[in-house]
Amino acid sequence: MAKWVYSFGDGSAEGSAEMRDLLGGKGANLAEMAGLSLPVPPGFTITTDVCTAYYGNGRTYPDGLDAQFDEALDVMARVTGKQFGDAGDPLLVSVRSGARASMPGMMDTVLNLGLNDDTVEAVAKASGERFAYDSYRRFVQMYGDVVLGVDHHDFESILEIEREKRGAMQDTDLTADDWKDIVGKYKTLVEETLETPFPQNPREQLWGAISAVFDSWMTARAITYRELHDIPADWGTAVNVQAMVFGNMGDSSATGVAFTRNPSTGEKALYGEFLVNAQGEDVVAGIRTPQELTEAARKMSESDAPSLEALMPEAFSEFQDIAERLESHYSEMQDLEFTIERGKLWMLQTRSGKRTTTAAIRIAVEMAREGLITKDEAVRRIDPVSLDQLLHPTLDPEAEKSVIAKGLPASPGAATGEIVFTAEDAERLGKDDRAVLLVRQETSPEDIHGMVAARGILTARGGMTSHAAVVARGMGTPCVSGAGLLKIDAKAGTMTVLDRTWKAGDVITIDGSTGEVLDGEVAMIQAELSGDFATLMGWADAARRLGVRANAETPNEARAALEFGADGIGLSRTEHMFFEGERIQTVREMILAGDADGRRTALDKLLPMQRADFVELFTIMGGRPLTVRLLDPPLNEFLPKSDEEIAEVANGMGVDEELLRERVIALTESNPMLGHRGCRLLIAYPEITEMQTRAILEAAAEAAQQTGEAVEPEIMVPLVGMRSELDNVKAIIDATAAEIAKAAGADEPQIRYTVGTMIELPRAALRAQDIAETASFFSFGTNDLTQTTFGISRDDSAGFLGAYAQMGVLETDPFVSLDTEGVGILMRVATNEGRKIRPDLKLGICGEHGGDPASIRFCEAIGLDYVSCSPFRVPIARLAAAQAALAMREGE
Amino acid sequence: MAKWVYSFGDGSAEGSAEMRDLLGGKGANLAEMAGLSLPVPPGFTITTDVCTAYYGNGRTYPDGLDAQFDEALDVMARVTGKQFGDAGDPLLVSVRSGARASMPGMMDTVLNLGLNDDTVEAVAKASGERFAYDSYRRFVQMYGDVVLGVDHHDFESILEIEREKRGAMQDTDLTADDWKDIVGKYKTLVEETLETPFPQNPREQLWGAISAVFDSWMTARAITYRELHDIPADWGTAVNVQAMVFGNMGDSSATGVAFTRNPSTGEKALYGEFLVNAQGEDVVAGIRTPQELTEAARKMSESDAPSLEALMPEAFSEFQDIAERLESHYSEMQDLEFTIERGKLWMLQTRSGKRTTTAAIRIAVEMAREGLITKDEAVRRIDPVSLDQLLHPTLDPEAEKSVIAKGLPASPGAATGEIVFTAEDAERLGKDDRAVLLVRQETSPEDIHGMVAARGILTARGGMTSHAAVVARGMGTPCVSGAGLLKIDAKAGTMTVLDRTWKAGDVITIDGSTGEVLDGEVAMIQAELSGDFATLMGWADAARRLGVRANAETPNEARAALEFGADGIGLSRTEHMFFEGERIQTVREMILAGDADGRRTALDKLLPMQRADFVELFTIMGGRPLTVRLLDPPLNEFLPKSDEEIAEVANGMGVDEELLRERVIALTESNPMLGHRGCRLLIAYPEITEMQTRAILEAAAEAAQQTGEAVEPEIMVPLVGMRSELDNVKAIIDATAAEIAKAAGADEPQIRYTVGTMIELPRAALRAQDIAETASFFSFGTNDLTQTTFGISRDDSAGFLGAYAQMGVLETDPFVSLDTEGVGILMRVATNEGRKIRPDLKLGICGEHGGDPASIRFCEAIGLDYVSCSPFRVPIARLAAAQAALAMREGE
Repeated sequence: MAKWVYSFGDGSAEGSAEMRDLLGGKGANLAEMAGLSLPVPPGFTITTDVCTAYYGNGRTYPDGLDAQFDEALDVMARVTGKQFGDAGDPLLVSVRSGARASMPGMMDTVLNLGLNDDTVEAVAKASGERFAYDSYRRFVQMYGDVVLGVDHHDFESILEIEREKRGAMQDTDLTADDWKDIVGKYKTLVEETLETPFPQNPREQLWGAISAVFDSWMTARAITYRELHDIPADWGTAVNVQAMVFGNMGDSSATGVAFTRNPSTGEKALYGEFLVNAQGEDVVAGIRTPQELTEAARKMSESDAPSLEALMPEAFSEFQDIAERLESHYSEMQDLEFTIERGKLWMLQTRSGKRTTTAAIRIAVEMAREGLITKDEAVRRIDPVSLDQLLHPTLDPEAEKSVIAKGLPASPGAATGEIVFTAEDAERLGKDDRAVLLVRQETSPEDIHGMVAARGILTARGGMTSHAAVVARGMGTPCVSGAGLLKIDAKAGTMTVLDRTWKAGDVITIDGSTGEVLDGEVAMIQAELSGDFATLMGWADAARRLGVRANAETPNEARAALEFGADGIGLSRTEHMFFEGERIQTVREMILAGDADGRRTALDKLLPMQRADFVELFTIMGGRPLTVRLLDPPLNEFLPKSDEEIAEVANGMGVDEELLRERVIALTESNPMLGHRGCRLLIAYPEITEMQTRAILEAAAEAAQQTGEAVEPEIMVPLVGMRSELDNVKAIIDATAAEIAKAAGADEPQIRYTVGTMIELPRAALRAQDIAETASFFSFGTNDLTQTTFGISRDDSAGFLGAYAQMGVLETDPFVSLDTEGVGILMRVATNEGRKIRPDLKLGICGEHGGDPASIRFCEAIGLDYVSCSPFRVPIARLAAAQAALAMREGE
Repeated sequence: MAKWVYSFGDGSAEGSAEMRDLLGGKGANLAEMAGLSLPVPPGFTITTDVCTAYYGNGRTYPDGLDAQFDEALDVMARVTGKQFGDAGDPLLVSVRSGARASMPGMMDTVLNLGLNDDTVEAVAKASGERFAYDSYRRFVQMYGDVVLGVDHHDFESILEIEREKRGAMQDTDLTADDWKDIVGKYKTLVEETLETPFPQNPREQLWGAISAVFDSWMTARAITYRELHDIPADWGTAVNVQAMVFGNMGDSSATGVAFTRNPSTGEKALYGEFLVNAQGEDVVAGIRTPQELTEAARKMSESDAPSLEALMPEAFSEFQDIAERLESHYSEMQDLEFTIERGKLWMLQTRSGKRTTTAAIRIAVEMAREGLITKDEAVRRIDPVSLDQLLHPTLDPEAEKSVIAKGLPASPGAATGEIVFTAEDAERLGKDDRAVLLVRQETSPEDIHGMVAARGILTARGGMTSHAAVVARGMGTPCVSGAGLLKIDAKAGTMTVLDRTWKAGDVITIDGSTGEVLDGEVAMIQAELSGDFATLMGWADAARRLGVRANAETPNEARAALEFGADGIGLSRTEHMFFEGERIQTVREMILAGDADGRRTALDKLLPMQRADFVELFTIMGGRPLTVRLLDPPLNEFLPKSDEEIAEVANGMGVDEELLRERVIALTESNPMLGHRGCRLLIAYPEITEMQTRAILEAAAEAAQQTGEAVEPEIMVPLVGMRSELDNVKAIIDATAAEIAKAAGADEPQIRYTVGTMIELPRAALRAQDIAETASFFSFGTNDLTQTTFGISRDDSAGFLGAYAQMGVLETDPFVSLDTEGVGILMRVATNEGRKIRPDLKLGICGEHGGDPASIRFCEAIGLDYVSCSPFRVPIARLAAAQAALAMREGE
């Protein structure tokens, strides 16, 4: 016969914390506490197997349950000395659900069960009439609401009327007779609503509550929650039946909740609150103001209400001991519930406590220092993504918010500022140190100077890889892109959402972590990288195998990358350097040139600028590895688009408008993502490759001289699909290097460099064995690799990927977390085949997945050498890499 | 000691036809003929191994060659009774190159070698002075030109001056003394040019000629030719040294060339020409008009000049016998060279003869009937691609052409007509049966009615998959696309190339097989599918395993497909049906509708039209398999693009221009190829899927009733990357089928249908095992699969793929012939993984590769069930499939 019921209490238990799957979280922890001889009111847990059996057999209970249930009630009677349903000295119980994972949407709690018109009198005799009828009215309301389905508002309005009738301010002002009266009205309400009287038989009450818990497993809300959180329906819930203890038995009784450490700051100090003469629900309901647990906390909050420590020193002291014991038993900060009945402490719950990221880090670090956990365990306990909160300013969760539109969370962090509609205004006001938000239909290279000056960027069009999004992420500037509801009229200087309009100068706030656009200024919490943070990251670095590099082009980004602990730069996109200031003019001259000679003239002007950029970058990085990617985007990205822009640019350059337009049209492609870009440009216009190689190598020489550190640039060729492409570009690079050496009178290049390639096309992955013959390193460009493997343009995907997520066609956005089943196969193939040919092939990833923990886990599993991500995600990547390494070591 | 030299002649030979690799084509065939005891002038072949050794050792000859060379000369002396260099009765020789494969760019021939100021006198004594000096001047000129490198124009101008001086019309008018004089002048020319006298030592002459042959293996032209034709440099060439026989020894001597069958028609009749008293080069030079070989041919050509049959009946008869014998010995039509010296026939060469496709088919079929070869061998002998010549009208190769521009060969066949610049003009004039060519910047769905009416289509923009190209290929209309030199001004009604202008009504010609645009009318050869063609195709069908289907949408295409022998339709693109006539208006209504209800209203109007299309298609195909692909392209393809078009369409539809423009902008994508199309549309707008399913199934029922043949449509879902996508669309299809059945009062659908998918994204191939759980069939969409695997947009690739081909970065255009090393891996994976899950999974290909013989070979190798291609390529595919099957059977 299966065991369906597990008893606990009186210093022993049939279950334990290990049996969470069978007993649910609450039941397992109650059993554990009882097993530790802590004061837990006796009771029993009906297992999750019963739930499964119940649903497996048309909502009927399995054989043997009844007998085990009776036996368990007998145990409770023996321990408490009271019989359930005994009209003389009744045992009252609570009924609570408890699944493996905490799950909203389910029946929660019924207290005081076992009361009826007879037993209430016995309770009155033993503990006073007011307490008895207060308990009875609570029971009728709770049971009527959650088990019988009578609307709780109906109960509350009865109470409201009675209070008013009696001029009572609070429930405590009501007398025993008042409660008696109210109980009568409650019962009438139930009988009128359900056309059957409130159940008086305690057994019927109890089975009713148990069935209500099991039934609530299949409510629509619970099902939806499980689907969203990947909880299988067959996990089921357990039911906990426990002897009632009463915090509402007068002034020597109380009830409260506590955390073993401060869940907000992580400080090691008991943290919580309690109410005298109350039941648990009163604390939650917030009708009365709870009091502090400790004297220290009371002083801090300057409260007059006495602390538990002062009020009930013995009970407090016992509770404090138990709290410490539980934390050390579980090696984890605990969230506790307790009740004090006439001076006697009872523990009702313990579980792992929720906490802020700041607290989580402090707790983990301190616990490791205390020897409660290992450093690796500390590293394992922090959710890497949660670090994002620490690295950017965030909206104060307490602040009031008025959301006016929603776009894509394109670059994290929050920013408040005056609206400006042009890059020029942003630059002008930004110089005066005014906080401005640049609001544009979409941004273009023309806008860079304004984007630099703005605190945040908001666009009405464009996806997660739009110009605005990519540039903003690179600069660490908050950005919301593609907020489609916005109607922006830059000429009129207005932004309209539905029928509301904002003008230039009006203040708004954006949250680049959620995509929200908010009216006015919203309070913020600034980033602070505390000592605990640094300590934890140090432990993470010790644990990880994967290198963590940053994608960075500008000196600012490179410095940020170093601050955030990057080991080097994994992707430096040289084209971003082409957009800056006057350069774009020269780039355009190059594009408009009719032949290689014309291009060379323009490139000669660009060379010193690009070389200077690299000198600065190499100097900042001081000998750390640095991967420079040669020109990647199609040339038309450097050209103006609309007729107005063309006219403006033509005017500025002094070229014929018609000529410029023709060139723009000639360079316009139907699918630029798949067009004339990457190595295809480098092959067609070898003079570009030559100029960039020269800039890199000459800069490396200069930086090496300046810093005294050897610089060995990794030159990366983008968009290779065939080995012959890489061979072609490498030949140009090598020839240029030889030429530089020759001009310097040397036999071989003085600067050592390596040449490698992005693996960002399916074909490159499939032919890795050829490509590795030429490439010294592979860097997986998983943005493009995902686009081509799925055949999805990320810029155009918002429409249907949204629908896909809603319909469950796609569970995870493959642009956020690596599609290990599709794209991952290609990465695995390329890794294995590449290493077969070249065992020391250096392997990295530089797509946005390089900063995503799940993707980093995959990179660890297939044995890449490093991940590279935006500077602001470097800490996340370091921590995720450490966790991945720890998981691998344990064979997870 | 290696054998470097192989002798032949006098009824025996050391080599044979099998030794082509060692002796070259010419040498092997000379040895073979000698071995057959045919009258071959004796000689020897210096092997290709000598060439390899020569280059392997700094252009020096291997040990032992000298001795073997001397021995071989001795053999010749023994057979001919003459000594090389003997001043009394000298042996004269020819020196000819001969590689494994015929190769232009190499030294060809030196005749009469061995003549000098002494030996010429001996020859004069034996055979007359005029003959001797004629031969000597020929030798000095040839040797001077090809061995010593003196410009042949310089020799010719000397001859010219001398002829004029003497008033001679032809060379035959010149006397022995004239030749003597000219020889002197020739020698002076050589001496003055090279500052060294013309070599008089016959051995030196001979080694000079041999080295000249070997050296010519490495000339720039030869190297380029080898690269273009994938001939390895280490194959090397052989050198043939052979005793001279003289066709110029008076009127009983002659020289000629012949084919054993007519190379133009294939007729079984000796075909060729000869000249009396001439050497081989005279026939080629075309100075004198050659005479017919046979009396029959002379009569046909109404020539007065006697035939060889009449003039030298004995030699002719011997030649006729030899020709027959060689053809039957080689089982192949032969191309022969012969010389008659004073009535005695000598064979100088035999080889496989080049022929037209028409001739090739007739010869193969007749040889099979004659029992010379098997039917399979006949099938194997025809180049499938050459059939293209037969299936479309082609330009007469004899016609004069004035090429004015060149574009892409977008749809094969040639067409002549008046230029029209608008679809309206095309339609109007087309109705009067005027031949018009539609000339457009690029075409759009608006132009369909004009494209149907035009004989050919010419565009200035767009690639091989542009709208014009795809539609034209589908209709079998010749098309040249992307002729970038054209400046088209449709409003002015002019087309300009550089400084020349054509107006509407001017006649031009296009050749869609070469991409040429020609001025005026050019004579054409019409397609004719003769009985031999049909016979050969029948044999091919018996040999092939692969099914051959057509890509067809319209009734005309379906009928053409059947005429060309398709087994069914492998791809019917339903969207093409949306472009026709009034429908596009309704399609636009659907797109402009704001919600599903609005779309449904428009779709309800489209349903009967689409159903009627399918009824016709199913009826034509009469029970043959038919794959219908649901809507694939992004919706904006159905909308106007330019401002003018938008205004026009808005006007026509009676909708607000601004509204239409907004919708067009909203639907515009950065990379439409990777955008909201295919199953992404079918999932987002399930009502489209429902309508199309209904149209297909209701039409199938109606067609089945009309024809009495069961119709079992294969419904194909495009652009699937994840199984969940296919599941989603299949659920809609199945639900619609169930609904139709229910409305008809049936329990299950009355029409059987299957649901499958395109495999056109790398991810679909990588997850074939999942997708095959749902799909009944896969059809490889290799156009898109190539685009995504390479990350190349075909429309945008013209610029860099051209450069790639020039630079040797890419050998074969992967859009023309399957990239078996990259895309092919994905196809193989999908085939194997799919069949593991579903052993009866039907597998086909419907990209343009389905009509490419090399790709078809790959499809056979990986075991697909069928290929599908445009109707006009069906015969090519049938033949290629047969050859692939034969090759597989032989384990090639």
